[in-house]
Amino acid sequence: MKHLLTASALFMSLVHPTAMAQEAPSPAAIAAAAPAHDWQPISAQDLLVMTLAPDRDGHTRTVTIQLMPPPFSEPWVDNIRTLARAGWYDEVSINRVQDNYVVQWGDPDGEEEAKAKPLPEGLRPTEESDYAAVPIENLDVKIRQALARGILNRESHDRAELMEAGPEGRMASFWMRQFRSDPYALANLFYRGWPIAMMFGEKEIWPVHCYGMVGVGRGMSPDAGSGAELYTVIGHAPRHLDRNIALVGRVIEGIEHLSSLPRGTGDLGFYEDSAEHVPIRSVRIAADLPEGERPAFEYLSTESDSFANYADARANRREPFFIKPAGGADICNVPVPVRRAGAD
Amino acid sequence: MKHLLTASALFMSLVHPTAMAQEAPSPAAIAAAAPAHDWQPISAQDLLVMTLAPDRDGHTRTVTIQLMPPPFSEPWVDNIRTLARAGWYDEVSINRVQDNYVVQWGDPDGEEEAKAKPLPEGLRPTEESDYAAVPIENLDVKIRQALARGILNRESHDRAELMEAGPEGRMASFWMRQFRSDPYALANLFYRGWPIAMMFGEKEIWPVHCYGMVGVGRGMSPDAGSGAELYTVIGHAPRHLDRNIALVGRVIEGIEHLSSLPRGTGDLGFYEDSAEHVPIRSVRIAADLPEGERPAFEYLSTESDSFANYADARANRREPFFIKPAGGADICNVPVPVRRAGAD
Repeated sequence: MKHLLTASALFMSLVHPTAMAQEAPSPAAIAAAAPAHDWQPISAQDLLVMTLAPDRDGHTRTVTIQLMPPPFSEPWVDNIRTLARAGWYDEVSINRVQDNYVVQWGDPDGEEEAKAKPLPEGLRPTEESDYAAVPIENLDVKIRQALARGILNRESHDRAELMEAGPEGRMASFWMRQFRSDPYALANLFYRGWPIAMMFGEKEIWPVHCYGMVGVGRGMSPDAGSGAELYTVIGHAPRHLDRNIALVGRVIEGIEHLSSLPRGTGDLGFYEDSAEHVPIRSVRIAADLPEGERPAFEYLSTESDSFANYADARANRREPFFIKPAGGADICNVPVPVRRAGAD
Repeated sequence: MKHLLTASALFMSLVHPTAMAQEAPSPAAIAAAAPAHDWQPISAQDLLVMTLAPDRDGHTRTVTIQLMPPPFSEPWVDNIRTLARAGWYDEVSINRVQDNYVVQWGDPDGEEEAKAKPLPEGLRPTEESDYAAVPIENLDVKIRQALARGILNRESHDRAELMEAGPEGRMASFWMRQFRSDPYALANLFYRGWPIAMMFGEKEIWPVHCYGMVGVGRGMSPDAGSGAELYTVIGHAPRHLDRNIALVGRVIEGIEHLSSLPRGTGDLGFYEDSAEHVPIRSVRIAADLPEGERPAFEYLSTESDSFANYADARANRREPFFIKPAGGADICNVPVPVRRAGAD
């Protein structure tokens, strides 16, 4: 996750470990050094284990997805658990791989009503008003604390320059510090381990489309999708989808089994030939697996000092490779560290 | 490049073309409808044709790279032409594929001086001071015109809200309009077909690390790389590399042959086994190919009204699928349209 080293520089870094000892730690090293109490366990109820058909060399392919916690996207997340427990996803397939965009899976015959796989009973109705909007008054006070602490704050040189640029500059600096603007939101922050955005004056927040995030395919509005058709992002964050689609989770292990699939040659990257579809053998909630097969993961608490240091290091790379730290980072360039539990 | 349609919605859009006739055009449709004079030819001197070994099914794999024009990265771009003309890249290989980051190619034995492939004569020395810094006074006046026109301007609702938020809000609105800030720069704009950034008060501009951009691997500073080792971005824009590495071009065709390669399992995504390396058969300047084999491409002029409309449509998706246009776009979410010449 670090450098664009030439092979020779990599070799050098491997053979001179003592020379590196005093260097500024990388973001990954900061996360790895976090105390155990800064790591939060992920509930087995929030883990989806998706097993693809083996690859052409017979290797197993397992993708683990963390579902989003309340207050986000609750109807869809509930539906996904219902669909998984009904075995509905078993033997559907990956049908679309569009470069620099998404991998999408679901019923390949969904477009033909007579052939479509019937959905199980008990799915909740979904509404587009729930894509992202959550009254901020109802949220934990930590969200405002995180905002006040200025994680992801744009630091240093350009703010300093603004400060020297007269009253307008100082005012711009004030707004930048408060809201860390990007083109899609006036504030980006982390809430309970998830990247979210908010708009000035709008009393709502929403999860954002970063690499690896999982969302719900849908038809035309007001169809908001059931959760039977899902996708994950395999390219630059398509933030224009924020608040237009329900986000329900993120891939935390095995995304390479999706991102390295052959791209579809049909419209929007759909596979043109059904022989190209990648079969999904099963999707299970981790809590429903036998204890010995149940994976356990944890994430670095986004309310911890360790995370604040990690985010700062992502925004200001101080390792010897970097000669000009950016002084800022967009929220999708600060992926929340997730690891197997017990790795510490 | 458009929607996260369910299969049924895609089907619907295919069978009811007349129903779609009055809809707002997609960004791609706006580009396709641009008059011929808005398309700029790309010089055959600026096209690199990289031929990989066939894939395991025997299919050919060709990747076309557009080299960056002056005033950016000239020493490295010159070196790449020298290396290509010397046949130096022939039979080097792709040695690294790191998920959500880069694909990198060069001499797999580069780390061992005794085995390293000798570089040709005539390479220019390179300096890190040339990574990006270009005195803005020397640039074409169009750069300031583009800035003034406000392409990529954050539009609409949050600015409107700021305007209602008192003097501070109005001042923030002013700065946002002028500089379309993101966490990495105070201004992003397009210059002669390329995405670039600038910092308030710094008299320099630099190309940015978007998906598909090609850069130069290097060792530790002050090594700035020769151009013999190259990489391309296959994930979320790693903007923290801006001004830390020389960018020299972008992949304009065939990136799927790189982005869908198996991920390396070694440190930083390097392939651990040399059998995994993907051989590069040849890299040629298009101008040096026989006329019948010479590809021809063109890009949508970033100084044209068509491009301004395209960028606006990327920032404000008005097709029926979208219910909440973002009102802005980050520069890497506005890829410059490039197509085979004669497609019009």
